[in-house]
Order: sequence, then structure tokens, then C-alpha cells
Amino acid sequence: MKRKDLVDQIFSKKSFLCVGLDADFDRIPQHLKAEFEDPVFEFNKQIIDATAPYCVAYKPNTAFYEARGVAGWTSLQKTIDYIPDTHFIIADAKRGDIGNTSKQYAKAFFESMSCDALTVAPYMGEDSVSPFLTFEDKWVIVLGLTSNKGSQDFQFIQNKETEEKLFEAVLKKTQSWGTIDNLMFVVGATHPEKFADIRKIVPDHFLLVPGVGAQGGDLEGLVRHGKNEEIGLLVNSSRGIIFADSGKQFADASAQAAKRLSDQMAAFF
Amino acid sequence: MKRKDLVDQIFSKKSFLCVGLDADFDRIPQHLKAEFEDPVFEFNKQIIDATAPYCVAYKPNTAFYEARGVAGWTSLQKTIDYIPDTHFIIADAKRGDIGNTSKQYAKAFFESMSCDALTVAPYMGEDSVSPFLTFEDKWVIVLGLTSNKGSQDFQFIQNKETEEKLFEAVLKKTQSWGTIDNLMFVVGATHPEKFADIRKIVPDHFLLVPGVGAQGGDLEGLVRHGKNEEIGLLVNSSRGIIFADSGKQFADASAQAAKRLSDQMAAFF
Repeated sequence: MKRKDLVDQIFSKKSFLCVGLDADFDRIPQHLKAEFEDPVFEFNKQIIDATAPYCVAYKPNTAFYEARGVAGWTSLQKTIDYIPDTHFIIADAKRGDIGNTSKQYAKAFFESMSCDALTVAPYMGEDSVSPFLTFEDKWVIVLGLTSNKGSQDFQFIQNKETEEKLFEAVLKKTQSWGTIDNLMFVVGATHPEKFADIRKIVPDHFLLVPGVGAQGGDLEGLVRHGKNEEIGLLVNSSRGIIFADSGKQFADASAQAAKRLSDQMAAFF
Repeated sequence: MKRKDLVDQIFSKKSFLCVGLDADFDRIPQHLKAEFEDPVFEFNKQIIDATAPYCVAYKPNTAFYEARGVAGWTSLQKTIDYIPDTHFIIADAKRGDIGNTSKQYAKAFFESMSCDALTVAPYMGEDSVSPFLTFEDKWVIVLGLTSNKGSQDFQFIQNKETEEKLFEAVLKKTQSWGTIDNLMFVVGATHPEKFADIRKIVPDHFLLVPGVGAQGGDLEGLVRHGKNEEIGLLVNSSRGIIFADSGKQFADASAQAAKRLSDQMAAFF
């Protein structure tokens, strides 16, 4: 998907919501497990049908599919095929390896599956990221400042020479490898006070923002400091939407949860 | 696999060779593609049969399987099931995510597949690594200093407070999360001059060493500075062994390439 198309979707829906499809098998409603051969796909399908009006992106987290082996990978493939073309598809896979290997991961998610974007870990540097940037209208989303507690362990290490923190160095250096048309960054909602500083480094890039909801991030603060003229944010909620209810009405509950967030977002347009 | 069993295998074979199963579909011998329904598995099977006497570990790189979608994931599962119990199995997957997600990756590689170890990227810190460390006799192999050119981008950033480089901080901090019985580190063979310094930080941990062969690393130098009393090294070669020949005799050629490296290793016992 092109940046313009994503921005158009955002403005036409007045939503920058991304729904995280973290289809934890243990939390999928019992009745789906009893009725369907592939309850994970059926779950995602109903969630997608119910939430599509309120979001602009879906983000399946590959771990939840890989945990179930070949069956899980099959559910993932079917889910990605099912997501409508109007929605931006992010494979949250956090890959990254030496060049010849990253190229294979790019094939996996951009060719074998038709995702629009892939999350990538920056530790291995340029040749681990750049193979993903050679695909037209496909995106890399590099981990900048993550939402979890462990983000404190290494991401705030201050460089002796430049005084930059590691996550700032990642944002600065990585942006020269791509453009605002093929590169985004992950910035966790649990660091709302950092968004203003981050926008000084990457004013025009889209940011993928996990951590609203189950992880406790605050929408108001991050949007105030993080949005740009194109909005420039994809705010993700996973568990808070898809597991809003575990009964037969789960999809309705998900739609309501997505609509609530989407309505909050509309106020920022 | 327990550390003692791995060390016993190494001393009984006088080899610390790991064979990287980077089964690039484009490089698999044509005759296998013509004859077998799952040429990737058949390729791996013949490589494993031919090289098993000379190595102690196998390391399938998940990217090469994911690139082929469900079919690839099936080949990976079959390959892991086929590797004999005597050999240490490393899923080279470079995963790592927030805690609830890393737990799913652990399920994928330690339960759904019976790997002994998984490579993990450290950028997201403790809660992205520790879920892998709760499985008995299973191992995490954390990226320390990688073999690729991009290792220069962030891994050498020097901490203003401690003067440590990022990869040194990763080794120091991460080792407190596990033990020498469940934690190893990736240290690329392309940095032989660093092994002595690294051994000061992690004297007793096993190191997984990629980059010998196609990437140009030097065995002699890294072993001289890197081995400890238990050897403490798993030196990986992928392309140099598995693609030693592309004809009908490919497995024999792989056996010879593995034997050559194993013979060089025997000199260090």
C-alpha cells in the first residue's frame, strides 16, 4: 500500500486504529473450537468483519500462529488473505538477520504472503534491514522505543560520543536507509513523554504505537505529542479489542471496543 | 539437551561443528525437485545423514522455510523431527518480543517443535528473553556480536556511563537472566580479535559462532581466543557445507566439507 492510500483511509474514517490479531488459542471462544475446523481463522474472520469499519490496519502477531506449528501458519496465511485490500496489513514478526536471510524473510511476508509491512529488530544493522526496503509499496517498521519494561535495559543506553540514546541512534541512522514511503518506527504508548522528542528526529515518518489498552498506554498524551499533518500514527490495540468478550457475542464486543477507540481518535481530526 | 550431554558429544567426536540448514530453495539440486514431493526435506535428510558423524549440532534457519509459506513450515517441522537425538538443534529464528509473545515463540520452538535452542535478539530486553529460559533443558542463544557488516551500526556504540560497548552490555546484563546451562551467545567469526575480550565477560558460556566459510571468518584465530575447558564453542557453517555441490553427489560433497572442518577442529583437542 502507498502512503497516500493509507493517509486517505485514515482521513476518510477519522481513525488511525490498528487491530492486533494476537489470536491466542487459549483465549479463543469455546464455541468456535467446537464448531470449526480452523477456529483461529474463524475467530479472526469474525473479528475482521466486525471491526473493519473502525480501523485502518490489522497486525497479526506471528508468534501466536507459529505456536501451533503448520496449523497455525495455515491460519495466518488464510487470515492475511481474508483482510480487505482497504486495510494495511502488518506482520508483527520482529525479524532481522544477515542480508541473504532477511531477503528470505521479505519473500515470506511480502511475496508468499501479501502483507504490506513487517516489524524488524534493528540490532544487526543496515544489511539486516535494507533487503526489506527493495519491495515496491512494502514497508519496514523498525523497533525504536518498545512498549515493554525491558525497553529500559538497552534502548536508553547513552552514546559516549553523540550523547544520543540507543533508540534515538536507531531512529536517526535507520531513516537514512529508507524513506517516509517505506519505513515506519515502533514507539510504545507506554512512553508518552518521549513522543515530542521522537518527532524532532522523525517528523514525517509513520509511527506504529503498541501498548494502548492491556499494556496501559495513554491515547491522549501520545496523540498530542505524536501526530503530524498526516496523523502519522497507527495506534494498535490487540487484547483490549479481540478479547473484549469470550462468549458467542465476542465479535460484537470487539466491534464496540474498536468503535470506542475509533471515536476517541476522531476527536483529533 | 543438557550441557553435559552436549560437551560429551563434542569430546567424543572431537568436533564442535554446527551445520546450518539454510535450505535456499533456489540452490537445492534440480534432481530432488524433479523426484520428490518435498525436495527441501529430502535435501535436508540427505545432508543430515551425510554430515551427522562430523557435527554435533544442526541449525535450521527459519527464514528459508518461512519463505515458502505453509509448505516451508512443513519441511522445517519434518527436518527437526528427523534430526537425531544425539545432535543439538538450534532454531535460528532471531525472535524476541514482549513477554506474552515471547512465551508463544517458546511454545512454537520448544513444544510444537522439539528444538533445543532458539536464537533471540536482545533489543527488547529482559522480558523478551526470560520467557524462553523457563523451559527445562532448553536454551536461549542471544545475539551478542553478529558476523555481518551491519554489526558496526549499533553493536559498538559505547555507553557514556560504563564505557562498555553495546554488545558487551548485552553479554553482561543478559548473563544474569540465565545460567551457563540455558544461555549461549552469538559471536560472529568475522570478529576473531574480539574473542579474548568476550571470554573475559562470559568465560563459561557456550558461544555460537557463525561466519566461518561463506562469510570469511577464520577458524584458527577464533578457537585460539574463544575456546574454554569445555571447548564452549559451536562453530557454524551453512552454505560452505550444504551447497558444496549442486549435482547428484551433493550429499557426499557436504560430508567431505563437514569432515574437513571437523578434522581442523580435532587439532584443538
